[in-house]
Amino acid sequence: MKAAFVMVKCELGRLEEVANAVMELDGVSEVHSVTGSWDLLVKLFAPSYEAFGDLIPDLLQKVPGVRETQTMLAFRAFKPS
Amino acid sequence: MKAAFVMVKCELGRLEEVANAVMELDGVSEVHSVTGSWDLLVKLFAPSYEAFGDLIPDLLQKVPGVRETQTMLAFRAFKPS
Amino acid sequence: MKAAFVMVKCELGRLEEVANAVMELDGVSEVHSVTGSWDLLVKLFAPSYEAFGDLIPDLLQKVPGVRETQTMLAFRAFKPS
Amino acid sequence: MKAAFVMVKCELGRLEEVANAVMELDGVSEVHSVTGSWDLLVKLFAPSYEAFGDLIPDLLQKVPGVRETQTMLAFRAFKPS
Amino acid sequence: MKAAFVMVKCELGRLEEVANAVMELDGVSEVHSVTGSWDLLVKLFAPSYEAFGDLIPDLLQKVPGVRETQTMLAFRAFKPS
Amino acid sequence: MKAAFVMVKCELGRLEEVANAVMELDGVSEVHSVTGSWDLLVKLFAPSYEAFGDLIPDLLQKVPGVRETQTMLAFRAFKPS
Amino acid sequence: MKAAFVMVKCELGRLEEVANAVMELDGVSEVHSVTGSWDLLVKLFAPSYEAFGDLIPDLLQKVPGVRETQTMLAFRAFKPS
Amino acid sequence: MKAAFVMVKCELGRLEEVANAVMELDGVSEVHSVTGSWDLLVKLFAPSYEAFGDLIPDLLQKVPGVRETQTMLAFRAFKPS
Repeated sequence: MKAAFVMVKCELGRLEEVANAVMELDGVSEVHSVTGSWDLLVKLFAPSYEAFGDLIPDLLQKVPGVRETQTMLAFRAFKPS
Repeated sequence: MKAAFVMVKCELGRLEEVANAVMELDGVSEVHSVTGSWDLLVKLFAPSYEAFGDLIPDLLQKVPGVRETQTMLAFRAFKPS
Repeated sequence: MKAAFVMVKCELGRLEEVANAVMELDGVSEVHSVTGSWDLLVKLFAPSYEAFGDLIPDLLQKVPGVRETQTMLAFRAFKPS
Repeated sequence: MKAAFVMVKCELGRLEEVANAVMELDGVSEVHSVTGSWDLLVKLFAPSYEAFGDLIPDLLQKVPGVRETQTMLAFRAFKPS
Repeated sequence: MKAAFVMVKCELGRLEEVANAVMELDGVSEVHSVTGSWDLLVKLFAPSYEAFGDLIPDLLQKVPGVRETQTMLAFRAFKPS
Repeated sequence: MKAAFVMVKCELGRLEEVANAVMELDGVSEVHSVTGSWDLLVKLFAPSYEAFGDLIPDLLQKVPGVRETQTMLAFRAFKPS
Repeated sequence: MKAAFVMVKCELGRLEEVANAVMELDGVSEVHSVTGSWDLLVKLFAPSYEAFGDLIPDLLQKVPGVRETQTMLAFRAFKPS
Repeated sequence: MKAAFVMVKCELGRLEEVANAVMELDGVSEVHSVTGSWDLLVKLFAPSYEAFGDLIPDLLQKVPGVRETQTMLAFRAFKPS
């Protein structure tokens, strides 16, 4: 499985509703509310990197109350030695 | 325990060395190399939010090869219902 | 008490109305209109850092005319020696 | 007196030294370490807005360990009614 | 007289209409359409820096079709020796 | 012919529709969906750089579902030696 | 083959030298100098998305004179109907 | 003649020296120190847009003390009716 992190900005005042809806999407494993200019950090998994190209516009961006997203694909996970 | 995510930019060509060194720091639980304008996404834990105020400038930013950091504190972790 | 600074972008032409409404919120101690890409800089206090995680989406972002916010938690206040 | 807020990025690992030095500058009234992409938020006063045009490049930017600054002039301070 | 430069983002497809309306505002001396992430660069004059604190939210931001603005106050104009 | 690259942000959930419509515009030679904070990267050609000054606000920004654009003019194309 | 676009910032005054060196790297198909905040836009190909995770830090970022990079993976190429 | 605006960031403490040197370059007509994240706004002219593709890396970026530049080409100058 491949991992991606997606930063999400919500319509103002809808953070909790969006976070709960995102949490129910297939492949989403973590949703955190964060300080700064983004509202949520989402970790999700897909069988291939190509799959994120569909998953994010077709699923995540269609959650009501999502206003903007920024995707970072995770390439390597470093492990303690 | 409280969680924070730190985006890290490395000196060019030193990503792997930095990732391995960061992985060894106390409280660090995940290090991923990511696409976009940042090189690494780091998840770390501390007993209180105040602790990050010391931990990040005193430990993480002193790892050789770290060039820039941006911290997001994680407030709420949403769980599947 | 813990402090945070929140940058606020208002709907165009509603700066004064937003500033006055923000000024009335519990915990807000200063509101300044500023040059640059943000309209207002707000200083606010809460009993704990966790409290900002609710206060900002639930109170500040719900002020009519607020368009976007960016939060910086203040960790240490430096004093003249 | 006029007020300005200056965001400051420090050379990595020199935050505390910079904050203490900035605190000693004439006109500086508050220095806070903050989360996010900037290290310090500085509040300072000068007799006129023009004065900031000299004060920031000539004093603040010359503090050893300062790496980058971004200035916001404060125009109006809103007061509780 | 004091000078300021304001970057303006227009609602899509309304650039020309906005530019013409901005050009008619008191104090505006130049309006250029520019490449990049902003649509227009506006140069304007006011009797004092404080005046921009009103002029920009009260006049410029109220031009129909203006979507976002970012202000830079001009402190010193350098002259050929 | 001169080349330009335009980054495009679409209204959420309309990426595919926008990409197909942009692809049909005169002068557009490539449209790619990309990771990060932009949705599409568009390569287009015009007989002169001046022509982009009209083409982008008058054609590209008027495609339904386009939310924001950022233009980079391409000056020199480097060739393998 | 998979495609990626990489924005490159060069050390000042070394744009041409960097562009020529990047052009010689395996997998690089286009290098353009562009207006805005980046100096070069590079299009490159690799057999898989994972490969970019090595190729960019290990090859592209090690070209002398490269100062900063930002990667966008290209997922779908849209074609005229 | 074609116009461009270039935002310039200087090495800290060298603003005045850079501004004076930039002012002497061929084609430069205005240099202003500005508030915000950039230090100088430079207006310059060239016989064609292509010429900026050489002029900025070859002349402006080579002025000692220039740290970063961002170019906006000016397409249309709007005139009062």
